[in-house]
Amino acid sequence: MKRVAIVGIGQSKFGRRIDVNVNELAFEAIREALLETGLSQRDIEIVSVGTVGSPWSEELLPAVTVTDYAGLYPAGVVRCEAACSTGSAAFNYAYSAVAGGVADVAMAVGVEKMSEVDTATAVEVIGRSGSYLWEFENFGMTFPGYYAMHAVAHMAEFGTTVDQLAMVAVKNHKYGAMNPLAHIQKEITIDDVLNSRVIAWPLKLYDCCPISDGSAAVILASEDRAAEITDTPIWVKGLGMASGSANLSKRKDFVGLKATVLASRKAYKMADIEPEDVDVAVVHDCFTIAEILAYEDLGFCGKGEGGNLIEEGETYIGGKIPVNIDGGLKAKGHPLGATGCSMVYEIVKQLRSQAGKRQASLKKGIGLVHNVGGTGHFCYVTVLSG
Amino acid sequence: MKRVAIVGIGQSKFGRRIDVNVNELAFEAIREALLETGLSQRDIEIVSVGTVGSPWSEELLPAVTVTDYAGLYPAGVVRCEAACSTGSAAFNYAYSAVAGGVADVAMAVGVEKMSEVDTATAVEVIGRSGSYLWEFENFGMTFPGYYAMHAVAHMAEFGTTVDQLAMVAVKNHKYGAMNPLAHIQKEITIDDVLNSRVIAWPLKLYDCCPISDGSAAVILASEDRAAEITDTPIWVKGLGMASGSANLSKRKDFVGLKATVLASRKAYKMADIEPEDVDVAVVHDCFTIAEILAYEDLGFCGKGEGGNLIEEGETYIGGKIPVNIDGGLKAKGHPLGATGCSMVYEIVKQLRSQAGKRQASLKKGIGLVHNVGGTGHFCYVTVLSG
Repeated sequence: MKRVAIVGIGQSKFGRRIDVNVNELAFEAIREALLETGLSQRDIEIVSVGTVGSPWSEELLPAVTVTDYAGLYPAGVVRCEAACSTGSAAFNYAYSAVAGGVADVAMAVGVEKMSEVDTATAVEVIGRSGSYLWEFENFGMTFPGYYAMHAVAHMAEFGTTVDQLAMVAVKNHKYGAMNPLAHIQKEITIDDVLNSRVIAWPLKLYDCCPISDGSAAVILASEDRAAEITDTPIWVKGLGMASGSANLSKRKDFVGLKATVLASRKAYKMADIEPEDVDVAVVHDCFTIAEILAYEDLGFCGKGEGGNLIEEGETYIGGKIPVNIDGGLKAKGHPLGATGCSMVYEIVKQLRSQAGKRQASLKKGIGLVHNVGGTGHFCYVTVLSG
Repeated sequence: MKRVAIVGIGQSKFGRRIDVNVNELAFEAIREALLETGLSQRDIEIVSVGTVGSPWSEELLPAVTVTDYAGLYPAGVVRCEAACSTGSAAFNYAYSAVAGGVADVAMAVGVEKMSEVDTATAVEVIGRSGSYLWEFENFGMTFPGYYAMHAVAHMAEFGTTVDQLAMVAVKNHKYGAMNPLAHIQKEITIDDVLNSRVIAWPLKLYDCCPISDGSAAVILASEDRAAEITDTPIWVKGLGMASGSANLSKRKDFVGLKATVLASRKAYKMADIEPEDVDVAVVHDCFTIAEILAYEDLGFCGKGEGGNLIEEGETYIGGKIPVNIDGGLKAKGHPLGATGCSMVYEIVKQLRSQAGKRQASLKKGIGLVHNVGGTGHFCYVTVLSG
């Protein structure tokens, strides 16, 4: 297996981007990544475009137009989709292509323009990444409903509190306010969260991530090519992918995501590290409870201890394991296809010590990306190091 | 780079499959591939689901339901899409994952159920894989129109005749009639083609592939695992991917597909072979002219000589290079996501000498798969050997 480095990254401003179409939005990230490396479009051998895309766009096959607009030929082109972990799926394709010797330089670009439909339609489309025809139509489940179920189970089993859920939102908004690319750059208080309207109890509006537009791009290269391109390669040390059933009636419990446990153990094994070795992490906080589940399932604390971990401030900068100090999905935003690549963008910035006021202290120089798809049935975990 | 073998294959009957939903259709191929290998779902580490999917299906994110129905967890799951070369994109993901050491056993499954919409809608959706908003809406281009343009250019430049186009259809129907999995199992004559109604001159109905439902699956494994699974591994010797502009006004000419030339040269180089070394090939004959372009762009004959190659019978069994002796897209059918995997299925059958009456004679034991996406702007070429 060849060593693979991240040699270039780019990210657009996240938010309601009615100022651009999807191709222009993607190009903002592609351009930044290319400029950073000094590469031209013709140097890119494979492009994986991560986008859920067609539900919200007139462009039913957006990989065509995204790459055409950006002039990314004659690269081999593919679109990857894995629900909310679509960006990670694209990243993994690009990684595999380089590791497998199919390309020396590959780009993953994630993009989503969700604001092209109204919120109700978006919620329905997102629901299609669950077991829609069974659970949505028969039982009225929605995504906030799914995660509310996880929250209630976790509260009942471990005594996790609504205050602890709110603390996740407060932390992520604090860091989002320091991130100029974040969708929501506003600090909030626990009371703001508790007093916001109920979406699916116990989740309130501020427990939920927003619906965002955005893009991010990552250029990966083989070890030899990386040495020619950059002095600060960031290495892909491990990655793991796993899935569980999308049908919740087939799951044993609702206090964690088995796919996260399996994917992270694979990634740790490949990287030959333990959870304690991770200096900084971005995890999939589509809802506040999801971040608490992630703490536990990734092994940052024991099962049931996630509420205490946030309450004790251990996931802030300076704590045991800083998490989502880019604002997370919660404040930075969650443009589905972009999120996975944007998570890599943040960890690369951290490992390069380019995160400014939001810089975590690095001991072992190891960062982690955790991206979940659907109702927790897809999970991708990636371990990076400087 | 690790050697990667194909260890199992499966394919559904192609046709108008109103008897199954998309998950059941995919499972027909998945089941056959699993049974052939003796593997269970839990042995599959990564599944790439090739499907364009959402335009014709209520399931907007079909990788979720296809893998859930088939019990394919805890595998890592991704959907791949590259317009009409979607199946090859999924195959390439699975290959790269094994070659790159991300998995020891991976499955690519391609599926499409196009009959869920009417033909006019299907034609519009397929058009989205071109430069739709520009060319379709402004100039009234359709896919038959695109390939008709290529046909007219080829006729004008090289004297290719409508009879030669028809000969491609006659050959592929001859072999389709011998393939129990083919959509159309009926021999036709040159007159049948010439007398069928004009779709986009010079292309008549019988110059066009049908709109089909179908699925195909391929299981790939690392060299060590392959030895445990099968005595007849088929090796992936080379693959190439390339793209051109989807915007036809940016192309220099219309007598060939540059993406095919680039992708095949990459694949030949990786496999360390010349076009003459190929014993049997399946190429992307969405329209008869496309097969003639492929002969030339793949190097099976010189530029402009494709019409003569079919006229002289050189692409029949017993000829210089048998092409599409499974019936091709033209008669076997073209369920977009399934096609690329189905092409691999056919070449694996040929290289295992399991093709019965349709068996090509093997000299070097090398077969080739050629799959084109959109208006020829995506191309995937794969070289396999016994």
